[in-house]
Amino acid sequence: MSSLSDLAGIGRDPRRGGYSRHGFDRAELELRGWFAAEAARRGLDLETDRNGNLWAWWGSPGPNAVVTGSHLDSVPGGGAFDGPLGVVSALEAVDSLRAKGFAPGKPLAVVVFAEEEGGRFGVPCLGSRLLTGTIKPDAALRLTDPAGVSLADAVTAAGLDPARFGRDDEALARIGCFVELHVEQGKGLTVPVGLATSILAHGRWRFTFTGQGNHAGTTMIDDRRDPMLPAAQLVRAARLAAVGDARATVGRLVPNPGGTNVIASTVDVWLDARAPQGVRELVEEISEEAFRAADEEACQLIVREESYGDTVVFDAGLRDELAGVLGGVPALPTGAGHDAGILAARVPTAMLFVRNPTGISHAPEEHAEPDDCAAGVVALATVLEHLAR
Amino acid sequence: MSSLSDLAGIGRDPRRGGYSRHGFDRAELELRGWFAAEAARRGLDLETDRNGNLWAWWGSPGPNAVVTGSHLDSVPGGGAFDGPLGVVSALEAVDSLRAKGFAPGKPLAVVVFAEEEGGRFGVPCLGSRLLTGTIKPDAALRLTDPAGVSLADAVTAAGLDPARFGRDDEALARIGCFVELHVEQGKGLTVPVGLATSILAHGRWRFTFTGQGNHAGTTMIDDRRDPMLPAAQLVRAARLAAVGDARATVGRLVPNPGGTNVIASTVDVWLDARAPQGVRELVEEISEEAFRAADEEACQLIVREESYGDTVVFDAGLRDELAGVLGGVPALPTGAGHDAGILAARVPTAMLFVRNPTGISHAPEEHAEPDDCAAGVVALATVLEHLAR
Repeated sequence: MSSLSDLAGIGRDPRRGGYSRHGFDRAELELRGWFAAEAARRGLDLETDRNGNLWAWWGSPGPNAVVTGSHLDSVPGGGAFDGPLGVVSALEAVDSLRAKGFAPGKPLAVVVFAEEEGGRFGVPCLGSRLLTGTIKPDAALRLTDPAGVSLADAVTAAGLDPARFGRDDEALARIGCFVELHVEQGKGLTVPVGLATSILAHGRWRFTFTGQGNHAGTTMIDDRRDPMLPAAQLVRAARLAAVGDARATVGRLVPNPGGTNVIASTVDVWLDARAPQGVRELVEEISEEAFRAADEEACQLIVREESYGDTVVFDAGLRDELAGVLGGVPALPTGAGHDAGILAARVPTAMLFVRNPTGISHAPEEHAEPDDCAAGVVALATVLEHLAR
Repeated sequence: MSSLSDLAGIGRDPRRGGYSRHGFDRAELELRGWFAAEAARRGLDLETDRNGNLWAWWGSPGPNAVVTGSHLDSVPGGGAFDGPLGVVSALEAVDSLRAKGFAPGKPLAVVVFAEEEGGRFGVPCLGSRLLTGTIKPDAALRLTDPAGVSLADAVTAAGLDPARFGRDDEALARIGCFVELHVEQGKGLTVPVGLATSILAHGRWRFTFTGQGNHAGTTMIDDRRDPMLPAAQLVRAARLAAVGDARATVGRLVPNPGGTNVIASTVDVWLDARAPQGVRELVEEISEEAFRAADEEACQLIVREESYGDTVVFDAGLRDELAGVLGGVPALPTGAGHDAGILAARVPTAMLFVRNPTGISHAPEEHAEPDDCAAGVVALATVLEHLAR
C-alpha cells in the first residue's frame, strides 16, 4: 500500500503554507525517488523517458498500453492532493488488482509527468507538452525559473540529457489509452467520483510594464513614470473582463526592484485567462486597457503569450464506456488544466475526479475525504481492469 | 585617497541592476571591512558602537566632536552614490585636511550608520534610530528580513551582542555637531553643492489583505475572495490621494503564494507616504479606500505602521554659519529621509547636498558628476576645518 501521508513531509513550504514542489527541484526529485522505490517494491519496471517523465510498467512496455497517473509537483504553497492523489491512487489500484489476482491482457503503466503546474518554469504541463511536441524543445529548454536557472541546466543537474528532449513518438505509440485520476478543483461534484467532459481553453500571458525607477520621497508625482499604476489597472481590467464562464486572474505580480521607498522601474504581471471560447479575444480586451493605462503613466508595455491551449473535449466514447463500467457516475467540465488535456489530442483519454468538499484547490486547505479517495481507487481499479483485460 | 570606484564591485545585483547592500548582509559586511581598512590606513581608531554603527576617530573620542559620515547600505537595486558618497567624501576630506597640515582643535569622527534604507528590516535609519532611542531595541531586534531572519540573529551572526542594543547616551554625548554629505535626490540643486533646510515627514505602512487562496481556473468569479483586487485599488488610491507636496508610493507588493494559476491567499503592500504635514491623515484617507475595497471583495485588511518620523527642520544657526563659510551656497528642502534627520533631534545637524543632474535616485541610473563630487569634498573639508578648528 502507498498513501498520500507517505509524502506529507516532502516539500513543505513554511512561509507560504502547504507544499512547494516544482519540476526538478529538491522536493520534486525526492518525490521521484519515492516513486522509484514504490515501483521497485512492486516489481514494476521504472523508465525515465526522454523528457523526464517517469513510467512504471506492469508488463512489457508496448503498444495498446493502458496508462494511468498524474504529477507530483505543486503550485507554490499548494495542497497535498493536486497531482499526488492520482499517482498514489494508481499505485493502490495496481495493488488492488494484484491482490485479486488480475492478470492484465495489455501492458499497464503508471506515469508521473514533469512540471505539470508550471510553477517553476512558467509553462504548465511541460512534461506532457514536450512528449507530444506541443512545445518545441528549444523553446522549453530556454525557459528559466525565478532564480534564472534554465530548464536545460535544471534537467542536466538532475542527470537528464537535454539534447534528447522533444516530441517522443515512440513513447506515445505505446499508449492505448490514458486515464488520469485527480482531485476535483471546484464544487462541481456532489458524489465521491465523477468523469471529466472537457477542459476550458487556457493561457498565460506575461505583461512587463517599464517606467523609471526613482526615489519615493523626492520624485514629484507629476514627474513619475511608475509602472505599478498600470499594473494595478491590469488587475482591475482582468476582473472586469471576466464575465460569464470566463476567468481572468492575476496571482503573480513582481515589482522590480521591490523596495518600499523606491518607485519600481519595472513590474511583471502574469495573467491567467480561461474560457469556453474566445480566450485570446478576452486577453486582447484586457491588454487594450493595460496599454491605455501604461500610456497614461508614460510607461512601456510588452505582452508575451507564455502558453496557450484550446478547449479540450475528452473522448466521448471512452467516457461513456467508463461511465457504464462505473455504474453511471456523473460527468462534468473543469476549468483546470491537466496532462490528460495535452494527451487527449493524441490518444483516447479520460479523467476521473474525486470530490472536493469545499472546492478549494491550489491552496493548503485543498482537501478530499478519505472515503472519497478510497472510492477513487476502487473506481480507478475497476476502469483499469476493464481497459486492460 | 579613497574613491567610490573602490566599492564598484561590492554588492552588485545582476537581477535588479545596480546594488543591493543591506544591513549586515554579505555585501554590507564587506563594505564595513573596506571602511575598517580605510580607517586603519589613516591611523583612525575604529569603534563599533553598541548598535552596530562604525566610528573612525581622528583624535580621542570625546565631547564636542565634529562628526561626519553617512551609510553604506542601499535600497534593493539602488545606485552607487546614495550613502557611500558621504562616507568616501568624509575620508577624502580628512585626507585633504591632513595634506594641508590642519590640526583639529576638537575630536573628529567619520561615522557609518547601519541599515539606513531599511531595505532588509523595513525600518529606515535603523542604526541612528537605535542610537538615539527613536526605536526601542526590543521592537528593532524582533524585525525580520524577507527570509525570516531577525535583526537579533543577523547582528549576532555579524559578531555583535544584541543585548547591548538600545539608546546610547554616552555615544551621543560625544557629538558636538553632525554634518552629513549626500547626493541630492531630486532636481532641486542647480549648482554643485547646497545645504539642506528640512526633510518631509515620512512613514511606512504595511497593508495585509487576506482572502481565500484558490484555483485560478476552477473558482467562479462570484465565489472569489481575491486580495489582489483591493491591493490594486490601494495602489490607485495612494496616487489619487497624493496631491500638492504629498507623495504616496507603492513600490513593494508581494502576493502569497505568488503562483500564476493561483488566486492569492494574502497580499502584502507597503505604502511609503511623505508630506510637509498631515502624513497620518493622508494614510487614513488611503486606508479608508483600501478597507472599502477589501470589504467589497470579502477580504480582511490589517494596516500596521512600520515607521514614522515627523518633519525635520535642520538647525538654522548651523546652516547659516556653514552657508557663510561656503560663500553662500543655496539651501533646499528634501523629501528623502536621512540619518541626519534622526540625529537632528538630539544634536546640531546639517546636511551638504551634491548636485544630481537627472534627479534620479534609488535606481541604477543615479548619478553625480565627478567635478560635483570633488566640489562636495572641498565643501565638506572647508566645513570640517571651520567646525573643528
